[in-house]
Amino acid sequence: MKLLEERIAKDGRVIGTEILKVDSFLNHQIDVNLLDEIGKELFRLFKDRHITKVITIEASGIAIAVSAARYFNVPCVFAKKARSLNIGKDVYRSKVHSFTYDNDYDITMSQSYLNSDDTVLIVDDFLANGAALKGMISICEQASASIGGIGICIEKGFQPGGDEIRSKGYPLESLAIIESMSEEGIVFRNA
Amino acid sequence: MKLLEERIAKDGRVIGTEILKVDSFLNHQIDVNLLDEIGKELFRLFKDRHITKVITIEASGIAIAVSAARYFNVPCVFAKKARSLNIGKDVYRSKVHSFTYDNDYDITMSQSYLNSDDTVLIVDDFLANGAALKGMISICEQASASIGGIGICIEKGFQPGGDEIRSKGYPLESLAIIESMSEEGIVFRNA
Repeated sequence: MKLLEERIAKDGRVIGTEILKVDSFLNHQIDVNLLDEIGKELFRLFKDRHITKVITIEASGIAIAVSAARYFNVPCVFAKKARSLNIGKDVYRSKVHSFTYDNDYDITMSQSYLNSDDTVLIVDDFLANGAALKGMISICEQASASIGGIGICIEKGFQPGGDEIRSKGYPLESLAIIESMSEEGIVFRNA
Repeated sequence: MKLLEERIAKDGRVIGTEILKVDSFLNHQIDVNLLDEIGKELFRLFKDRHITKVITIEASGIAIAVSAARYFNVPCVFAKKARSLNIGKDVYRSKVHSFTYDNDYDITMSQSYLNSDDTVLIVDDFLANGAALKGMISICEQASASIGGIGICIEKGFQPGGDEIRSKGYPLESLAIIESMSEEGIVFRNA
């Protein structure tokens, strides 16, 4: 997605060779016009997949999921991280490893909002090692829901998550794939 | 807001006299059409306030903030809860007490995204004791930003937060105010 790549090149900040900060427009401050275009592009990519739900994990996936869900005109559901007194007992649960913090956390989703009638679009802001994504795939499997698509805003193509998920046959599309990056600049795949 | 009150009455679940679960349409699964109407109503209420930013706290405020920000055509910024390795050092910070979990947590917002030129609309899904809201007000004060409005989806009118914030002169509007509730039903203020 040209618009997103251009924005990353303009406003993204690379720290070292692994950290890309996009918090001026995507996951801390949010540019609502760009967000609309992201939702529209995800709809264009997956509109024939009979999507019934868009799911993500709190917190930074929520804006993207809501934007996509508007175009599909279906509900969005976000998995919660760990502790939630009020969520109840009937939940799907999956363990996710955080490479950033080097620890594990649980994600949960109420069983009321995902079941075998659903065809899901999974979305997230970043894909690197794929840990969060595998957690969401596990939740879809627990619900016997079909995965109609996986839509990622920014894939770090130099980390293994994307290739691993694709090799398993999942319909994964990333709006921008970074081949390599440094403080000198960012190289996008197929750009 | 009639549409929201009707939806709460139809799909909200009251547990005891203090817990209202709206996770089938507002803060776990999200009805994107209702969300659009909420954004539109917040715009109607505060459109003359020269709003330059919509702010909230992750996670359940994000969808509402994004929806409102679309109508105002301004960026949305969400405060982060606690630990964030990548957020950097130049942050506004405020301590929030959680009555649900009986503990304190920090919220942070990068200083890059809020300053004295801003007029802010603060939004959130719930207002009960007002702890989260006071944290956001503190962040606006630290930034010397003006508070142009505070828009809440559901205020628990039987808890003190709303009256306390109003008595200080803040322009607070809640789309639905619950006077009392029990498993027998919900009574809205001015309904």
